[in-house]
Amino acid sequence: MPGKRAARDAGYKMVVVLRGELRLTAGKAAVQVAHAAVLLTLAGQSHRPEAVAAWLREGGKKIALVVPTLVDLEQLDRAARARGLPTVWVEDAGMTEVPAGTRTCLGIGPSAVAEVDAVTGALDLY
Amino acid sequence: MPGKRAARDAGYKMVVVLRGELRLTAGKAAVQVAHAAVLLTLAGQSHRPEAVAAWLREGGKKIALVVPTLVDLEQLDRAARARGLPTVWVEDAGMTEVPAGTRTCLGIGPSAVAEVDAVTGALDLY
Repeated sequence: MPGKRAARDAGYKMVVVLRGELRLTAGKAAVQVAHAAVLLTLAGQSHRPEAVAAWLREGGKKIALVVPTLVDLEQLDRAARARGLPTVWVEDAGMTEVPAGTRTCLGIGPSAVAEVDAVTGALDLY
Repeated sequence: MPGKRAARDAGYKMVVVLRGELRLTAGKAAVQVAHAAVLLTLAGQSHRPEAVAAWLREGGKKIALVVPTLVDLEQLDRAARARGLPTVWVEDAGMTEVPAGTRTCLGIGPSAVAEVDAVTGALDLY
């Protein structure tokens, strides 16, 4: 129910969307989401410092979502970039669970809630 | 087997230790770990920029670990700080799953692997 979720959101948020098909352990998934969050924060500091500062002041809201497959994630990346949203891919180093170079998740933002919800509002929570 | 784990680690790493007793969903846990990772990265940029830069050059290694209870996490925080390691607590905003202000995890680093392992090497992977 994206409308309800959006209603209680702050002005900015970051989302990280995982590939359900990888069936990562909870710890592995957590680390992938953390990789995306750090990369987006650092990129944002360079390219959109005011958005990052506003997002951090609000508490740095983050949401973990899921899509079934890599194809879904690639479509999401194109949709996000078409709207001018910053995205980042995380590739796993591959020492455990998945082969090296496997794309594990896509991070988006931090950006205005309405902009992020326009491309991720219908996705399931991870 | 901490020795084996340490042997393949890079020079720096960050660990985030979750409270097992909270039984968070995988998505909620992932977001807590991401909060800790971003906070530690930002604090490190201010106070220990060379360690953060080295850690990022190596790929920004992160590990999610778990202890049973908050008391265990508090002991870990004291042990880490006694060794001069940077730590950060994450408190949940409490809109879902746990009451507002609940301490969900403790982040440590990024610091030299041997220093981090001295306090976290015996803990279980999340």
